[in-house]
Amino acid sequence: MSGREIPAIFANAENATFIAKDEYEDRLESLRVELLNNQFDLGRADFSVVILIAGDDRPGCTDAVHALHQWLDVRHVETVAIFGDPSESEEAHQRPVMWRYWNRLPRHGQIGLYVGGWATHVVAAPVRDLQMDGGFDRSIEYIQNFEKALARDGTLLLKFWLHLPKKELKKRLAKARKSPKKNWEIDERDWEILENYDEGLALVEQVIRRTESPEAPWLILDSRDERTRNLTLATRINEALSRRLEGSTPESATPALGPDGESLGETLALDTVDLSASLDKDVYEKELERYQSKLNALSRELLRGKISCVAAFEGWDAAGKGGAIRRLTRAMPIRSVRVIPIAAPTEEERAHHYLWRFWRHLPRDGNTIVFDRTWYGRVLVERVEGFASEAEWSRAYAEIRDFEAQLCDHGVPLLKFWLHIDADEQLRRFQARKQTPYKKHKLTKEDYRNRHKWQDYSRAVHDMVVQTSTADAPWHLIAANDKRWARVEVLRITCERLEERLDAERAQRKGRKDEKKRKSKSRGAR
Amino acid sequence: MSGREIPAIFANAENATFIAKDEYEDRLESLRVELLNNQFDLGRADFSVVILIAGDDRPGCTDAVHALHQWLDVRHVETVAIFGDPSESEEAHQRPVMWRYWNRLPRHGQIGLYVGGWATHVVAAPVRDLQMDGGFDRSIEYIQNFEKALARDGTLLLKFWLHLPKKELKKRLAKARKSPKKNWEIDERDWEILENYDEGLALVEQVIRRTESPEAPWLILDSRDERTRNLTLATRINEALSRRLEGSTPESATPALGPDGESLGETLALDTVDLSASLDKDVYEKELERYQSKLNALSRELLRGKISCVAAFEGWDAAGKGGAIRRLTRAMPIRSVRVIPIAAPTEEERAHHYLWRFWRHLPRDGNTIVFDRTWYGRVLVERVEGFASEAEWSRAYAEIRDFEAQLCDHGVPLLKFWLHIDADEQLRRFQARKQTPYKKHKLTKEDYRNRHKWQDYSRAVHDMVVQTSTADAPWHLIAANDKRWARVEVLRITCERLEERLDAERAQRKGRKDEKKRKSKSRGAR
Repeated sequence: MSGREIPAIFANAENATFIAKDEYEDRLESLRVELLNNQFDLGRADFSVVILIAGDDRPGCTDAVHALHQWLDVRHVETVAIFGDPSESEEAHQRPVMWRYWNRLPRHGQIGLYVGGWATHVVAAPVRDLQMDGGFDRSIEYIQNFEKALARDGTLLLKFWLHLPKKELKKRLAKARKSPKKNWEIDERDWEILENYDEGLALVEQVIRRTESPEAPWLILDSRDERTRNLTLATRINEALSRRLEGSTPESATPALGPDGESLGETLALDTVDLSASLDKDVYEKELERYQSKLNALSRELLRGKISCVAAFEGWDAAGKGGAIRRLTRAMPIRSVRVIPIAAPTEEERAHHYLWRFWRHLPRDGNTIVFDRTWYGRVLVERVEGFASEAEWSRAYAEIRDFEAQLCDHGVPLLKFWLHIDADEQLRRFQARKQTPYKKHKLTKEDYRNRHKWQDYSRAVHDMVVQTSTADAPWHLIAANDKRWARVEVLRITCERLEERLDAERAQRKGRKDEKKRKSKSRGAR
Repeated sequence: MSGREIPAIFANAENATFIAKDEYEDRLESLRVELLNNQFDLGRADFSVVILIAGDDRPGCTDAVHALHQWLDVRHVETVAIFGDPSESEEAHQRPVMWRYWNRLPRHGQIGLYVGGWATHVVAAPVRDLQMDGGFDRSIEYIQNFEKALARDGTLLLKFWLHLPKKELKKRLAKARKSPKKNWEIDERDWEILENYDEGLALVEQVIRRTESPEAPWLILDSRDERTRNLTLATRINEALSRRLEGSTPESATPALGPDGESLGETLALDTVDLSASLDKDVYEKELERYQSKLNALSRELLRGKISCVAAFEGWDAAGKGGAIRRLTRAMPIRSVRVIPIAAPTEEERAHHYLWRFWRHLPRDGNTIVFDRTWYGRVLVERVEGFASEAEWSRAYAEIRDFEAQLCDHGVPLLKFWLHIDADEQLRRFQARKQTPYKKHKLTKEDYRNRHKWQDYSRAVHDMVVQTSTADAPWHLIAANDKRWARVEVLRITCERLEERLDAERAQRKGRKDEKKRKSKSRGAR
């Protein structure tokens, strides 16, 4: 095993020469001034900085972070130390893996210092039996997509791997064994790294190769000499920050073939919905009772099985989203369901990637979140009203698919409803609202204005459906000219989808049991 | 058991008469308009509304909430359903009990709808073996202090108990047993309520009596008739809201005997600190190594034992807080420690009680939070600079004592350090900062201005120490003219306090073991 060649990217890093103490001090003094000045300018800029520090030199990572804490203005640095310990908080592993990183992203003007982070997690997962919703290759894909989303949103993303040659690590551990009190930074995890050194490094190489990109570059540093390592790290951060502040933004290309190019003779998705569907009052009441009772039983089962659910509602103004949502949540245990109304983003939300606020709201296992309007705002209102550039909304489809796939990989059923009415029905409802005193407040001038863009919105809905209706997370287009029909449809489909999910869960559980039985039998036979 | 008299407050509620359907609809229509108008005005007001809905009519509570959801503009309502289930999230019970309520308080202009909430928790705790950091009486005290803190901060606080006579509850459960599908809202918890009905009601009476106050009144409602109950509830909310919006604020009296009255011949707390204490460089380095090594071992033990720690740093500008904090955190596992620098509050934070942002940051079990400046800002800078009124800062002492006592009851060691230097030393450090290029940014004009108020600040520190140095959470005044001395002192005291905490934990664990042994022995003897 020890005869294995070490990958070239690490071999190269082992050839560094170390700088002398006085040179270090000289360079550090001017570097600190520059760093602070750059950080000051960053505070007024409209992007954030994400720095990942990981490595096989575990105490070295910690040391580097403490050095940066000393050199930077820590009031604007958010340090997130996540090493993928199995002892990690329930908060984290009750959600899709990447939630832990999304949740604590720095806002514009700030620096997020991730220690360990996603690179460590994916490397440590096979060794330590950590959460991995979709296996190694999918995890790499999550990382690629995460980094891409950040970089395209303008985030300056820098990744450092602090490498320690095996020989050096051995030496350190021997020293620590001799006088453990003086070397309190070394612990059992460092021994673990040594034990798995060669296989570990091979895995790291894969991770680095596959997540290397111009937008999110890796730098591998020789970690043997503290001074050289910390100074190099800070110098590289400072350089990248300077360059970025001077305005060399990575170009975000507009796709050559935009998703909004019309095809001749095409039928828009919404035109396929039969709006004449309706229910009589007495049928409605029976069906409502039937499905609410069923949904109640199903959601209790979800809660017991620690399965979350996310429901996303979109639709025309006055299509009856609120009423449909109330019929749905009414049947679920009040402590496990939460409705999140999505309005225009707050200042805090605008200072982050547009998906950030949705990631943050993800329910922990067993709970249901209903979004009243959703992340699809990006490709609907923001597209049509021009709040997002074409580059922004057209790359959103892939970002949304990735976000939703991560939910599904984590086992969360995702229900997406578009409540559809026609323009005449909408006008009738607007006028009725004017007549009902307590409904007047629901009507704004904007509503009438939006009516003029019916065609543009129809187009946007069509593209949305085509681009984001996947096998795991299909769109349900609901005929809603008749409110009763729409409400029952939403309930019916929800029950159906949840039942599928619970069936799958049961089958899986049975599979595991059978497997166990089979194994114990074959052991018995031996 | 069934012969027990029911308490008068409930007997009274059982005498309600119910309103007819057409009267209900009549009154509802105008009520909804008024509610929405009031809510609109609330949106521009500088206070928040907290409504607690609890009761022995569990499905009734849910129904009332859904009615309010329909009648209010839900975009400005935050619903928090917490029934004190043992299955509650780890997020909650790894912190002091009241964290779960503080954490989700509405901001100014919004309504927080708490279902179940603290009243249900304290009643259910003995039955369901729920988290109760300090026992029943202490829990009542937490609630009283919580409500007082909110009310004095301007929150409109309304509490409703939805009461169902035993006979009615029995009838409902019998009906549910007959056709469970139609009565899916009834579940095992309702049977539990019936079983413990009389004892439960006696406990509820105690809770209501002891948490009744003009600032946080209770209203007990007959819950038998849905329409009457929901309409009454909404009407009362609407009335209270109207009254409050018209400006009848509860007066917040200034105490007759303010804590800032000087006594003749008094020695201020800071004058007792011997500022000549210092350490030689070589002694310092040895001591630093010794205590960091010790602290590292201790904090690993904390992590294993799931004990959190909160360290609070205050002190004069340039007293060396940052340096002392870095020496401290350097010795702790990076993934379990977090430094929170406290700057001027954000817009979001200003729209809440001043303690809200500190509650939110409380670490979950096993983790350490270091506050660089703290909640004491209220009685230091805000007092001296006049950012808080006398009424505000003088009631803060009691609020802070309560906050800290809850931490201690939860088993969290709380370390409070004031780093003390004299005015000459401060001036020397300010001048040195001007000479060091990368330290210049730390110096603002405000720093020089604050120097003129040295006496006022000394007085404020003195009052703070007298008012908030408790046996469980004493202040440590650290001589910091010599930075080395101060850093080692902070480390030494931290180690000492953590050791005490761990000793107590060990003793407790041993006590539990001995108790078990004793019990199993005495069983054997029988």
